[in-house]
Amino acid sequence: MSGDKDHIIKSYDSELARLTGEIVRMGELSVTQLEAAIDVLDRRDERAAQRVVGNDDAIDQLEQEISHDVVRLLALRAPMAGDLRNVFAALRIAADIERIGDYAANVAKRSIPLSMMAPVAPVGGLGYLAELAAASVREVLLAYRDRDAERAYQVWKEDVVLDEAYTGYFRQLLTYMMEDPRNITPCTHLLFMAKNIERIGDHATNIAENVWFQVIGEPLNKQRSKGDFTSSPEMTKLGAPAM
Amino acid sequence: MSGDKDHIIKSYDSELARLTGEIVRMGELSVTQLEAAIDVLDRRDERAAQRVVGNDDAIDQLEQEISHDVVRLLALRAPMAGDLRNVFAALRIAADIERIGDYAANVAKRSIPLSMMAPVAPVGGLGYLAELAAASVREVLLAYRDRDAERAYQVWKEDVVLDEAYTGYFRQLLTYMMEDPRNITPCTHLLFMAKNIERIGDHATNIAENVWFQVIGEPLNKQRSKGDFTSSPEMTKLGAPAM
Repeated sequence: MSGDKDHIIKSYDSELARLTGEIVRMGELSVTQLEAAIDVLDRRDERAAQRVVGNDDAIDQLEQEISHDVVRLLALRAPMAGDLRNVFAALRIAADIERIGDYAANVAKRSIPLSMMAPVAPVGGLGYLAELAAASVREVLLAYRDRDAERAYQVWKEDVVLDEAYTGYFRQLLTYMMEDPRNITPCTHLLFMAKNIERIGDHATNIAENVWFQVIGEPLNKQRSKGDFTSSPEMTKLGAPAM
Repeated sequence: MSGDKDHIIKSYDSELARLTGEIVRMGELSVTQLEAAIDVLDRRDERAAQRVVGNDDAIDQLEQEISHDVVRLLALRAPMAGDLRNVFAALRIAADIERIGDYAANVAKRSIPLSMMAPVAPVGGLGYLAELAAASVREVLLAYRDRDAERAYQVWKEDVVLDEAYTGYFRQLLTYMMEDPRNITPCTHLLFMAKNIERIGDHATNIAENVWFQVIGEPLNKQRSKGDFTSSPEMTKLGAPAM
């Protein structure tokens, strides 16, 4: 009997390790998608953009498989408190990665109509946002792999840099739109693409919160100001003057 | 022993019924949030908007509790194929409702800066989109409550109406922006708000797909054209002419 129990515990641990590996790989795939989306935008390559959009199905599929693995893991052993935290973290982190993949695919999707328009100056600014977001996702995946709460906390804290860069870019886009009505349509695409990337950063902080909770057992303090600042009252000023 | 087994099965069924009830209530709350968000926009009521934003925490909290209930349910009995479908549907539908709540809160959040700007004509058009989205969510919640695959399918099919209304509204906003640069900032808020509502419709169709799978055991055919059409190549034309 005790041999049986050892066997069950061992397979639980190895299942959990396999699950973590799957989730990290899925996360790396989502970062690659984001980088590919920016790359096709720079190259104005419509067919490559379609490929990025198509690849998102693979991430969705992985997320479904991970959910099934989680349930199998639960069936293997009625989990204890610490194990339950692992299981929840796996479910939630996989869901966040799936969302990151969706946002990356959206960026690629919007690069298709953009590639058919006359180039507009501020396209380049999007790459910087994407770099920040990709670095956050990579970093938080390592924190998850190594169960490193402190590393997760750093990612969480640094998201403000991406938020500020997004707000700056948003303002820049508005001025281009006000300058010349022909910029309005391409710039609305860039607005949505920038927003998608800012949301990827939010999902990296969600993952950081889940890693923290998994390791520490208590929620990360949510006092930090979050989200973008473009919906804050001060942005109303930009709408006031006629140009 | 057989009495014990009956008892376990009974409590599993009653737990599942309770879970379904919780999810439907959570869904109703998210629809109420969307309607409140549009209402505060019409009344330009900043404090009411803040309340809507604050209420979103309650939905997030509910979703966390539902995830915990799902795991408790799994621990009660290693589920069979049909039960597993119920459990997955519950997890996924709760996650979709949580996203619907997020989008509703985003709509309310953007109504705050809008209420401080001079009113712009196309604000009214947002209400129609919200009505369509709210009706879809309400309808798919009933389909979920009654395990009614056909009703879910109707919601799924009808999402194209919201998509088309969104695309029309998006085009309308672009023309206002091109007409007068002072419209650009308020209209970018409206663009994001409209997109949030269009996404609520997408989550209603996700729920419909989960209801279908739960009842029928096979995925709903995904051939229907989905998403908004504003990132389609034909939208590039709008950017071409100088005005």
